[in-house]
Amino acid sequence: MESSEISTRHLLDIAGLSNQDIRWLLDRALEHASGTNNARCPNLCVANLFYEASTRTRVSFELAARRLGADVVNIELARSSTQKGETLVDTAATLAAMGVNALVLRHPDTGAVAELAGQLLRPMHLLNAGDGQGEHPSQALLDAATLERSGLNWPEAKLSIVGDLRHSRVARSNIALLRRLGLGHLCLAGPSELLPDWVDDEQVEVCGSLEQALHDADAVMMLRVQHERIDRTAWPDPADYARHWCLRPEHLALAGPDCRILHPGPINRGMEIDSAVADGPRSLILDQVGMGVATRMAIFEWLLKMEAS
Amino acid sequence: MESSEISTRHLLDIAGLSNQDIRWLLDRALEHASGTNNARCPNLCVANLFYEASTRTRVSFELAARRLGADVVNIELARSSTQKGETLVDTAATLAAMGVNALVLRHPDTGAVAELAGQLLRPMHLLNAGDGQGEHPSQALLDAATLERSGLNWPEAKLSIVGDLRHSRVARSNIALLRRLGLGHLCLAGPSELLPDWVDDEQVEVCGSLEQALHDADAVMMLRVQHERIDRTAWPDPADYARHWCLRPEHLALAGPDCRILHPGPINRGMEIDSAVADGPRSLILDQVGMGVATRMAIFEWLLKMEAS
Amino acid sequence: MESSEISTRHLLDIAGLSNQDIRWLLDRALEHASGTNNARCPNLCVANLFYEASTRTRVSFELAARRLGADVVNIELARSSTQKGETLVDTAATLAAMGVNALVLRHPDTGAVAELAGQLLRPMHLLNAGDGQGEHPSQALLDAATLERSGLNWPEAKLSIVGDLRHSRVARSNIALLRRLGLGHLCLAGPSELLPDWVDDEQVEVCGSLEQALHDADAVMMLRVQHERIDRTAWPDPADYARHWCLRPEHLALAGPDCRILHPGPINRGMEIDSAVADGPRSLILDQVGMGVATRMAIFEWLLKMEAS
Repeated sequence: MESSEISTRHLLDIAGLSNQDIRWLLDRALEHASGTNNARCPNLCVANLFYEASTRTRVSFELAARRLGADVVNIELARSSTQKGETLVDTAATLAAMGVNALVLRHPDTGAVAELAGQLLRPMHLLNAGDGQGEHPSQALLDAATLERSGLNWPEAKLSIVGDLRHSRVARSNIALLRRLGLGHLCLAGPSELLPDWVDDEQVEVCGSLEQALHDADAVMMLRVQHERIDRTAWPDPADYARHWCLRPEHLALAGPDCRILHPGPINRGMEIDSAVADGPRSLILDQVGMGVATRMAIFEWLLKMEAS
Repeated sequence: MESSEISTRHLLDIAGLSNQDIRWLLDRALEHASGTNNARCPNLCVANLFYEASTRTRVSFELAARRLGADVVNIELARSSTQKGETLVDTAATLAAMGVNALVLRHPDTGAVAELAGQLLRPMHLLNAGDGQGEHPSQALLDAATLERSGLNWPEAKLSIVGDLRHSRVARSNIALLRRLGLGHLCLAGPSELLPDWVDDEQVEVCGSLEQALHDADAVMMLRVQHERIDRTAWPDPADYARHWCLRPEHLALAGPDCRILHPGPINRGMEIDSAVADGPRSLILDQVGMGVATRMAIFEWLLKMEAS
Repeated sequence: MESSEISTRHLLDIAGLSNQDIRWLLDRALEHASGTNNARCPNLCVANLFYEASTRTRVSFELAARRLGADVVNIELARSSTQKGETLVDTAATLAAMGVNALVLRHPDTGAVAELAGQLLRPMHLLNAGDGQGEHPSQALLDAATLERSGLNWPEAKLSIVGDLRHSRVARSNIALLRRLGLGHLCLAGPSELLPDWVDDEQVEVCGSLEQALHDADAVMMLRVQHERIDRTAWPDPADYARHWCLRPEHLALAGPDCRILHPGPINRGMEIDSAVADGPRSLILDQVGMGVATRMAIFEWLLKMEAS
């Protein structure tokens, strides 16, 4: 019998996951990626509700749900029109009343998904697919699953995250998850005005150069330059940024021999990453994409799981 | 053997339904809502063709079709672009030639769906999902099914419809259906400039105040304030409207002890309905949404039914 | 075992098809159209990636894939926004990494699909659904299948293509395919400024009038006037065009007794074709639409076929 607590299990952020949850999700994602698990969720009915355009994330969730045998509906709403003025709370309740039991939500406002979780009029599972500068937990989980499959040994590894850390929900979720997984050495790097003002951990190293970030690294996550934010925030000059922070083949010599290159995509070739690196043998960028579908299958299963965590 | 008459059965308006049709549709909707009917329509192929944006109605039809095992394609066309100038008749014929046998059509022009029914180049079932200020028959059917499930006894009940009756296709279809169902006492209420000029029934009471409409009512349907029409038509001042016509908790004391509150959604909280009412125990608003999927399943089945009505 | 050559079979243009391929595709399309083949492709996962809006073509591919039991995702990207600046190569690789194995691509740039075929980062099947003024091979195949079903005998037939041949990808693919099928007499007709500058075949007749094109013709393909191009290219005055090149009932008397009328759609009634002709007994326009789904089913099957061509 489903208790009300279980029926409203959400994926809002990394902090809301127990260590057991994280382990289950990563193991299951790896099973899906290797094709050794054929689980189906015939009772799953997903709505992808996107207030920001994102083909990549929407399609990933859509294919994950389809592979579980679920129904999926897509709803893309421009923020400006906001569907005849209906509130997000009412849109979610309406979808729940129609039988949607998992709402994948992307929203431009930080905290919008967590706020909705506290206001649900009808029970449904919420899945944060990116909220402003908040979190993007499914991205962090798929990144971790990709790194595990590549053989990274968390306690002994050095991993660097490079770019606009301050405004990045990808960075925020990854930093939280990497700590939980016991990463040995986390390095954050980027222009000073883009370093996070929300990390207060003495165990995290902040690097002032790409060279320092790459030095002996086992994995590097390059963040996307969000062109749409450059005008709005205190951003360095893009050409200047590329000169200092674009990951090029020569940087890889500074890193460990098997250094993995990750990027959440979509990549800006020549801006934050050179094509020779993005398409090179150390790049796991397309592995991340494939793991994205597998991880989201695991997340849907986890949301519907009967057992309390 | 399918006769040509049957193969082109449509749902254009309430007047086109026999009493037997109405009874069949409501009974079947209630069966779907209670989960006691698992009918499938594997030969159903639905296109949702929307010339006006409506996430809510489109998703409701989409999920209804999917639950019957049907294929569904969604087509949203802005009225301005009108798809390279193709006529509606040609778009419908094209979809029919592709194998679409049920066309769910929303159009800003009153009468557009009925007009198309007279011009079909290839047989297909038409389903009016709202035509201008014309009809919205599936909404009226789902409202009636919701009220029946709530135990309303038509001949003895007083039901009030409140708001912009003049321009509302929801009101028009509901008034037609409620008469057919033998509603005992129908009351229409709203500012004088928004009262319908198309009702000529001495048995319908027209009320000049919300208080009068609520008095001893067993059910109240609040209509949505269509902000997009306020500029275009002779509309009262919105603040003035809310002051006089917003349904608030104190009004409910005037109504019958079990008075049901309905609203077709999306609701404008604080404009035509107060949140305490919309989310309160007497509200059937989300029940309507759930019944919407069930009713549209019944409608698709009815369209494909072999037996003549 | 799948060789890499086979796993990346594409449909880019007519020239890339062997005679055996063409025969297989047409025969299979005719089987699907007649319902004598129930093949399924459960491993097919299709993305419709459209950089130009086209409801008709997108829905045709979508229904074809669904009828084969495949998963389909739709992605419509305005050319201007181009999805956060991601390149087409990266978008395709991303979709391939997600498990999409057939990419249906429409793009405003001539040659874009063929160019992508040479740059794929991950293997997937490409299907050109129209590239600028390049090719539209599935349209030519469905036209040929429609004509074969109507009983046209290629070696003895006269077929005329009328309209804006110069800028038409439909014309380009059709001319290439009709030659391969051994059409007896091909006639191209239109205003001189719209005649193709890329046909150099002495066996092709160029006609200066609609009357000449219709004379003894067994089939006529009318091309769509692309209103959106009129402003941009050296186009005749539309009213003038309609006066000289609109196919009207009186023209049919000049043609063979069973002359078939084709049009790729959407039609501009009264511009390039009169309604009495478009809706008349000789019109195969809606047959083309139906054959479109059948032909695209055949194309998907062919892309996945194990046997080398």
